[in-house]
Amino acid sequence: MSSTLSPQTREKLKGVSTATLASALFKKGLRNQMIQGSVPLSPPKGGSMVGVAYTLRYMPAREDLNPMTVFRNHSHPQRKAVEECPEGAVLVIDSRKDPRAASLGGILATRLMRRGCAGIVTDGGFRDVAEIGALDMPSYQARPSAPTNLTLHQAIDINVPIGCGDAPVFPGDVVVGDMDGVIIIPAEIADEIADEAVEMTAYEDFVIERVRNGEKTLGLYPPTDERNLELFAAWRKERGR
Amino acid sequence: MSSTLSPQTREKLKGVSTATLASALFKKGLRNQMIQGSVPLSPPKGGSMVGVAYTLRYMPAREDLNPMTVFRNHSHPQRKAVEECPEGAVLVIDSRKDPRAASLGGILATRLMRRGCAGIVTDGGFRDVAEIGALDMPSYQARPSAPTNLTLHQAIDINVPIGCGDAPVFPGDVVVGDMDGVIIIPAEIADEIADEAVEMTAYEDFVIERVRNGEKTLGLYPPTDERNLELFAAWRKERGR
Amino acid sequence: MSSTLSPQTREKLKGVSTATLASALFKKGLRNQMIQGSVPLSPPKGGSMVGVAYTLRYMPAREDLNPMTVFRNHSHPQRKAVEECPEGAVLVIDSRKDPRAASLGGILATRLMRRGCAGIVTDGGFRDVAEIGALDMPSYQARPSAPTNLTLHQAIDINVPIGCGDAPVFPGDVVVGDMDGVIIIPAEIADEIADEAVEMTAYEDFVIERVRNGEKTLGLYPPTDERNLELFAAWRKERGR
Amino acid sequence: MSSTLSPQTREKLKGVSTATLASALFKKGLRNQMIQGSVPLSPPKGGSMVGVAYTLRYMPAREDLNPMTVFRNHSHPQRKAVEECPEGAVLVIDSRKDPRAASLGGILATRLMRRGCAGIVTDGGFRDVAEIGALDMPSYQARPSAPTNLTLHQAIDINVPIGCGDAPVFPGDVVVGDMDGVIIIPAEIADEIADEAVEMTAYEDFVIERVRNGEKTLGLYPPTDERNLELFAAWRKERGR
Amino acid sequence: MSSTLSPQTREKLKGVSTATLASALFKKGLRNQMIQGSVPLSPPKGGSMVGVAYTLRYMPAREDLNPMTVFRNHSHPQRKAVEECPEGAVLVIDSRKDPRAASLGGILATRLMRRGCAGIVTDGGFRDVAEIGALDMPSYQARPSAPTNLTLHQAIDINVPIGCGDAPVFPGDVVVGDMDGVIIIPAEIADEIADEAVEMTAYEDFVIERVRNGEKTLGLYPPTDERNLELFAAWRKERGR
Amino acid sequence: MSSTLSPQTREKLKGVSTATLASALFKKGLRNQMIQGSVPLSPPKGGSMVGVAYTLRYMPAREDLNPMTVFRNHSHPQRKAVEECPEGAVLVIDSRKDPRAASLGGILATRLMRRGCAGIVTDGGFRDVAEIGALDMPSYQARPSAPTNLTLHQAIDINVPIGCGDAPVFPGDVVVGDMDGVIIIPAEIADEIADEAVEMTAYEDFVIERVRNGEKTLGLYPPTDERNLELFAAWRKERGR
Repeated sequence: MSSTLSPQTREKLKGVSTATLASALFKKGLRNQMIQGSVPLSPPKGGSMVGVAYTLRYMPAREDLNPMTVFRNHSHPQRKAVEECPEGAVLVIDSRKDPRAASLGGILATRLMRRGCAGIVTDGGFRDVAEIGALDMPSYQARPSAPTNLTLHQAIDINVPIGCGDAPVFPGDVVVGDMDGVIIIPAEIADEIADEAVEMTAYEDFVIERVRNGEKTLGLYPPTDERNLELFAAWRKERGR
Repeated sequence: MSSTLSPQTREKLKGVSTATLASALFKKGLRNQMIQGSVPLSPPKGGSMVGVAYTLRYMPAREDLNPMTVFRNHSHPQRKAVEECPEGAVLVIDSRKDPRAASLGGILATRLMRRGCAGIVTDGGFRDVAEIGALDMPSYQARPSAPTNLTLHQAIDINVPIGCGDAPVFPGDVVVGDMDGVIIIPAEIADEIADEAVEMTAYEDFVIERVRNGEKTLGLYPPTDERNLELFAAWRKERGR
Repeated sequence: MSSTLSPQTREKLKGVSTATLASALFKKGLRNQMIQGSVPLSPPKGGSMVGVAYTLRYMPAREDLNPMTVFRNHSHPQRKAVEECPEGAVLVIDSRKDPRAASLGGILATRLMRRGCAGIVTDGGFRDVAEIGALDMPSYQARPSAPTNLTLHQAIDINVPIGCGDAPVFPGDVVVGDMDGVIIIPAEIADEIADEAVEMTAYEDFVIERVRNGEKTLGLYPPTDERNLELFAAWRKERGR
Repeated sequence: MSSTLSPQTREKLKGVSTATLASALFKKGLRNQMIQGSVPLSPPKGGSMVGVAYTLRYMPAREDLNPMTVFRNHSHPQRKAVEECPEGAVLVIDSRKDPRAASLGGILATRLMRRGCAGIVTDGGFRDVAEIGALDMPSYQARPSAPTNLTLHQAIDINVPIGCGDAPVFPGDVVVGDMDGVIIIPAEIADEIADEAVEMTAYEDFVIERVRNGEKTLGLYPPTDERNLELFAAWRKERGR
Repeated sequence: MSSTLSPQTREKLKGVSTATLASALFKKGLRNQMIQGSVPLSPPKGGSMVGVAYTLRYMPAREDLNPMTVFRNHSHPQRKAVEECPEGAVLVIDSRKDPRAASLGGILATRLMRRGCAGIVTDGGFRDVAEIGALDMPSYQARPSAPTNLTLHQAIDINVPIGCGDAPVFPGDVVVGDMDGVIIIPAEIADEIADEAVEMTAYEDFVIERVRNGEKTLGLYPPTDERNLELFAAWRKERGR
Repeated sequence: MSSTLSPQTREKLKGVSTATLASALFKKGLRNQMIQGSVPLSPPKGGSMVGVAYTLRYMPAREDLNPMTVFRNHSHPQRKAVEECPEGAVLVIDSRKDPRAASLGGILATRLMRRGCAGIVTDGGFRDVAEIGALDMPSYQARPSAPTNLTLHQAIDINVPIGCGDAPVFPGDVVVGDMDGVIIIPAEIADEIADEAVEMTAYEDFVIERVRNGEKTLGLYPPTDERNLELFAAWRKERGR
């Protein structure tokens, strides 16, 4: 597991949503950290997907360089990435937003899960989605895609900075995913953002409880009415948050 | 609740599909009333979503006008819309077909439900989709989107005529949604269209029953064979429709 | 049922995935046989959807030629196709990748199921998706679409070569669908491809079992390590495959 | 030359714009006759392009059916169309709005010009655009595209009804093009539409002259102020129109 | 002419490019002020197009509300906008990025020119582009489009905040256009941005002169080598800039 | 100048079109070598643009890493690329097909020209297109774009394999451009392809001459009628080709 993500921060991030993180990043002037268009194959279990980004870059496939036999080469970047993506990391694939051929299939996804990876994300598509969606590891894609990646993609680089769904992803960044999709937290502010998101989440949980009870949002969200801050303080105390 | 939608018409519309309504509107020369590309977050319960349109218009966000602090202003159009959208109405948001930032999130959606609104529709996306999809109120969007709306959208107008998913929406129009999506019925013909759709639905129910029993569609759908009209009359009598 | 698809080949194809078929076709130089962008309305039951392609071509609708009354004509190509699509065949509709109006609705889909058709595929959308998705026959589309096909589509030709989701489809080609989508196998190589896919599937099943048990993929997938071929031979024997 | 287009109507249509024709067709309820997205390679000379539609339909290319050698077959539909498109007709190609491979190149375009064709239209692209743009025959396309059509397109049908740029095109329809693009007039109303467009053009010419002289448009365009109709009558008399 | 744009600022802006303005706005944190996708119909003469934004908002057209006769109403927003857009202002039209029907045609454009307007901008298309492109007033659009605006657009609001090509446009903002396209300067910073852009332009002119003479860009652009600032000071003195 | 492109091959390629090259590559099974969607800013002079590819890769810009001051760093990849792109080479930029911010502007393009580069290609857009289009060096882009590249792009790698307009580009590949756009010839077959293209061009020139004189294309193009090969032999002799 990469040293940039402490167990504490990982745990905190499991309990917050990508929406809250997007707001925390927005306050820091970061507006494009959401991977646009990638959705989960199945609902993540046990909290949000959290892991350090391990990246794989695809370029358009040239036919003569991409016969089926390339996979016999043990250093083929796609196969190498699957065997080297660290435990607890998320494999993030730059498929140039092209889901017409697969980024990856069921066998490699199963291997990643077995190796203890935290998830897989592509801005293209997966093949064998029924199989991948049933794994005990979250995965995100634009839409299913059966053709082998060789049809349109050539894996060319491992662990370099990439774009994924129009978001910048640097190796070591922290990747968080939930039902809304996947967001990238720059490594250097991951702890700080996690802390802020935990605080924001506490207030949002307080708000949603009150809204469910019939409270109006004006004055409460955000807390322009001071009394709400007092009530929130009491609420936190009561719940030990 | 707006006076343009009688309880009778509301009830009728709950029992008909957007497909049948689209055909009824087509016969009147209205071909673009379907909100293109918005799908339900979860299957509507208790019949189709029905309500009068209460609209919210977004324009592209200018960064200096859209810091997080704008929400402290109680007259911010998004927050105002959520507190003022009438009971039984559907909040329809013109997000310029841009789902890269959220139109709305879980807290505001919960407030709308609590206030008795009939549903929410956007041609953009929602954040907190797991939460919104679990509400006891239907919601429609293009795809999930975690970033706060301030990232790309500025709420600018309430209850003005808008476009949503390429459909024209006037405040007071009647909004109906099912698993196929959302359709807009001009206010002035809502009663008439509801009546026709109820009639069409009766015939379609008769047809589907017969088709399930092995009948062929030629002559039956539409009823070019007169005998089918007689059988239909008998069928209605029998069922009291 | 078309003579181009033997019961044996049909049975074999039911047991293989579109991903495996895409790879088998890729090896033959066929890279564009996947119908891009069409997804299943619900998970296929009892194996992959398999059938011979029976095609329907749509062109853009001219308003004066497409009033609702055209369906009174028993030789309207859409209605004719529904009554003539052979048992065991798949109706494949060229909707010019335009889901803004429906390709077909619940009544016609039910009729196709009742007539024993193997499935329906469009690169546009269906209306009545709740109903169609619940049928005991698989169906594939880009997204739901309530407006009647007359709004934008005019059915013009039956059983001619078409494009569907950018794939070439000739009448008589073999159509296979699973959760990843739909692929087209040229009629003349269907038997051969089915045989190869069955072989590939056996090896993939062997691989996935071993990967689940913690085996690494290098040397195993593809089998560059000879021992894996021996283990596979034993595995097949054991399982009688 | 097709009998559906009289020399008189052809001459009238040369003098009117696609904008005026679009309005005349709109009044008849035809809203989708403009070929969307196709622009002229160079400004048409001697008035608008006018001719009867002779159509060519492309489907997605299957690799095994489209080696370079297919052009050795004299009945290949693309080559046949080029030799059979009638004098005075416009070749309209349904390239499924895909300009990633050429619809046609310089040699075939030159042949069409030499044979007296009135123009070429595709919703894809041409190769050799410098050459085609310099021909003494108008041509319309989405964007240039060097790859041979075999790369993605297979010519499959001649003179069948097609879609081109989302417009319905029936063989025999009348095709008119200017700097705004290309519009399709249904054969059966071509004479009537031409007459109306000539009348409308006369009034528009009168209007533009007056607007250039500083007149305001309200009351003049459309002529809600009766005096403008009198002035127009005088203007026509004076100019013999 | 709007009071927000002084003759001095107008004159300064005529001499600077949209690229320089985009950089000046970027430094202030404004990244989305460029109207995306709109290109000039012909090269602007006498410097960049400059004017205050006067806006027109289109919504999707509902067929029953948009027969050709609506233009007989003198208060139809499109026609009213054309007669009321102030001298020296730029008419900016929100066509929802949909060029399938025209935003405006030759007669109205001519009237705008005659009334002394500074230009027209749409994120849709114009009809009569040959005519509009020949006017002595710049115009910007996505692509030509002959169908009357009633086909898909209904003019609904005058001089409200709009989106155009994904940029926020408030009435009174300053609009500048050149061959690269159109940029929007918020009214309140127009003077300041104009001043900065004039300064930047002086340095860029100095740089381009030196680069043409063979100078390398490192150290010069930006001036990290101090000597370049001295040379620039001398250059300005010499030229009186 | 890179050693992979001999002066002889360069000269040959200047005399052939991208269309002819696309056909020559198609015969070798390479179907995706055309950079899709990039068009020339102005007609190339003195034959086709020819040069060895020198690549620059952009990723999505993260705001905190891309203030205007990054250009003060002399090793910023964009600025470095401009000073290091070899004489006679073509700078090919992977802008992820996103023209919403510029790939490059007038000053850097002028520097590239001054340094003897053979051209610039991006699948995004240029700023200062009037200036760049007037340079004595060809340039290709999707559409003009004034915003500084920092707005959306971060230059991250020099001379690595990239995608550009969906084509694979390896450093050292040979880049050829004409009015149809830009094509990439793999380095290792550049000589061979150039030879074949010269041969094909000779025959095409012969054909076009005969077609202009009224010859029909069947039997001539391709030469299925043997006599045409004899006539061609005579034609070549006569012209010394």
